[in-house]
Amino acid sequence: MRVDKQGMLIVLSGPSGSGKGTIVSRLLKEHDDMVLSISATTRAPRAGEIDGVHYYFLTREQFTQMRGDNQFLEWAEYNGQYYGTPEAPIRDWLAAGKNVILEIEVQGAERVMDCRADLISIFITIPSMEELRRRLIGRGSETEESIRARMGVAKRELQRAFRYDYVVINDEVDLAVERINTIVEAETMRYGRMEQCIMEVLDNAETQ
Amino acid sequence: MRVDKQGMLIVLSGPSGSGKGTIVSRLLKEHDDMVLSISATTRAPRAGEIDGVHYYFLTREQFTQMRGDNQFLEWAEYNGQYYGTPEAPIRDWLAAGKNVILEIEVQGAERVMDCRADLISIFITIPSMEELRRRLIGRGSETEESIRARMGVAKRELQRAFRYDYVVINDEVDLAVERINTIVEAETMRYGRMEQCIMEVLDNAETQ
Repeated sequence: MRVDKQGMLIVLSGPSGSGKGTIVSRLLKEHDDMVLSISATTRAPRAGEIDGVHYYFLTREQFTQMRGDNQFLEWAEYNGQYYGTPEAPIRDWLAAGKNVILEIEVQGAERVMDCRADLISIFITIPSMEELRRRLIGRGSETEESIRARMGVAKRELQRAFRYDYVVINDEVDLAVERINTIVEAETMRYGRMEQCIMEVLDNAETQ
Repeated sequence: MRVDKQGMLIVLSGPSGSGKGTIVSRLLKEHDDMVLSISATTRAPRAGEIDGVHYYFLTREQFTQMRGDNQFLEWAEYNGQYYGTPEAPIRDWLAAGKNVILEIEVQGAERVMDCRADLISIFITIPSMEELRRRLIGRGSETEESIRARMGVAKRELQRAFRYDYVVINDEVDLAVERINTIVEAETMRYGRMEQCIMEVLDNAETQ
């Protein structure tokens, strides 16, 4: 019983240091049917960044035009630059049956959740603040002050976890990836995604 | 990070012939933390049936008293006998952290879903009506007429699948059991069941 199915939109978020980037790389490597949503930005590409891979690099005019045409799922301004999530590629991937991952910071995730109900939202959490501190120190690039600031932000972000469908603890990357796989698999069995199967059994009942 | 947790109430239902009984036996064998809810009935025990194992066998007076005291999650009358699901044992098992399975026919499942929101409902479906016919013939005890009647009932029951959170196809028992394990595991990561973990990380943040 194989049915052509719409993919699922999966929002992955969590505090900086929760390891969501590593988890996403692993998920994409493991699953041919998963793709990563690419953001648009007006900021200049950094060395090595490729248009359409790391970001869609847009001019301010292009961005404003798209925004006016309601082509972003969400958008925001940081440091005078625009960032946004273009909706059209997501719609196309979903229609092609791909599961689309939206790896996004906590505020952006909430904006997406506010305007779309048909998504699965997963909050990745660090196992403890101590562990977050260790990870931030491990980066070697943070001062004691910036570590404190980041931990303050993480704390505020953890308080927004209630907005998400699921919470996944990233104590070990392997385990976290497995947990997300479990969630995605379970979600394929939701009634809405199985309705077609039930209908097929029923249609076929007419001939019995 | 271990937290004492409330168990989950899992409603398993599906048409006669969907194989839910076999699936439940397998689940109980695999999981020490799962228990099966036992129904109460006023009908007489059949040979080999043990009180408190297969059913709680009650007198009509006992049943009516309990019903009056609102002690059943749901109840119904079939062939002049009462059947019901006592709530107290379920409450106790859940408090003890056990996942309680309620294996119940489709109408009873809906009555339970109508009065409790804190449950996970899974509809077990046959892969096709042809397969259901094969299974019913395989029993050797059904006439062509009774097979037809059972298939008619199954069809009506399939039309109620939309009431459930999840649909699991029982094409192979091993696969069906694995699918239910996946659902139960994913459900443990729902925000509501992870809230305590988030709170612990936050409490512990005070000391950082």
